Amino acid sequence: MGQVTCQISVSLDGYVAGPNQSLENPIGEGGMRLHEWVFPTAGWRSMQGLDGGEATPDSEVVTEMMSGKGAYIMGRNMFGGGPGPWDESWTGWWGDNPPYHVPVFVLTSHPREPLTRQGGTTFTFVTDGIDSALAQARAAAGEGDVAVAGGASTVRQFLRAGHLDELYLHLVPILLGSGERLLEDVGDPRFELLKVVDSPTVTHLKYRVVR
Amino acid sequence: MGQVTCQISVSLDGYVAGPNQSLENPIGEGGMRLHEWVFPTAGWRSMQGLDGGEATPDSEVVTEMMSGKGAYIMGRNMFGGGPGPWDESWTGWWGDNPPYHVPVFVLTSHPREPLTRQGGTTFTFVTDGIDSALAQARAAAGEGDVAVAGGASTVRQFLRAGHLDELYLHLVPILLGSGERLLEDVGDPRFELLKVVDSPTVTHLKYRVVR
Repeated sequence: MGQVTCQISVSLDGYVAGPNQSLENPIGEGGMRLHEWVFPTAGWRSMQGLDGGEATPDSEVVTEMMSGKGAYIMGRNMFGGGPGPWDESWTGWWGDNPPYHVPVFVLTSHPREPLTRQGGTTFTFVTDGIDSALAQARAAAGEGDVAVAGGASTVRQFLRAGHLDELYLHLVPILLGSGERLLEDVGDPRFELLKVVDSPTVTHLKYRVVR
Repeated sequence: MGQVTCQISVSLDGYVAGPNQSLENPIGEGGMRLHEWVFPTAGWRSMQGLDGGEATPDSEVVTEMMSGKGAYIMGRNMFGGGPGPWDESWTGWWGDNPPYHVPVFVLTSHPREPLTRQGGTTFTFVTDGIDSALAQARAAAGEGDVAVAGGASTVRQFLRAGHLDELYLHLVPILLGSGERLLEDVGDPRFELLKVVDSPTVTHLKYRVVR
């Protein structure tokens, strides 16, 4: 059976999103600064079908973090479309060909029929909680890993429940000052460092979560 | 002129001290877990005049962080002795031969005559703020570095004032859950990664602070 993993970019002061998150600004003010390291990499460009980009350690991390995934789980806000009952014209942020290419399970309080997109991505909407989402994702993933894609509150729920096997932090040397913290109210798991990838821009820290 | 540096151990959730700090428990509940990586090292034992210990990357960091320092600055709580006017029988936590071996400047609201200890350590009590302490420490340090030894509020004052050149974090993979955070209310400095020292127990991250 695969691992239950999470990879997420975090500021030096512990935030995974800036303040004042909104539909227009889903990662909050300044939050996009956490993700700027990804876009110049060859690994990211390749996944978008683009040539070029930088073949850096960051690029290898991007390629690594998108490989071996059999299914994803994400919170409602990460799928988007606003709160409340679904406007079914909303099909996610990612266009016709989302970057997942495997089944994605979306945690929500509001039922919705599954969505099939191009390139192997399906979105299944789960209304009965994280245990159910995990069971469905494991079944769909087979031998692959189940990646908890975010956002912060979803990752916190999985950590708190003891469901996470690996946490891969991309530590970005900026301060956001306020916003949404990742490692708050998650109990007291132990972390064992699996590896460090040293890069001039971002330090990648892969931990095993010990229960 | 030397650098103004700070090295400090911090939990994965950003705390440099646990909750409920007291005279009996000066680093707060669980706070000593942040420092356990230091004691088994050969570098630490050598500084105590002891043989043995582990010759690990952690040990090299301990040796590095204690070398080249021409003066230290610390807050009143780090020197200890409780709040308010001085009980002059209190001469610090470190016994007759403190581990500094250079001039130490203690920030306090309460005047006190300087203290001379064995091994080159002197304690000078500074009542007119961090700028004065820094000027005195620089003068005493000559070509050496001035190390801001702590605690958290002293480091925050130096960061906020733009006085810190280097911040060396020892990232300990534990969660304290509450206590005193380091990188809070310090403005928005930029950090440039100078180096990473990878160790199984603690990840050492040395940053230049860019103003």
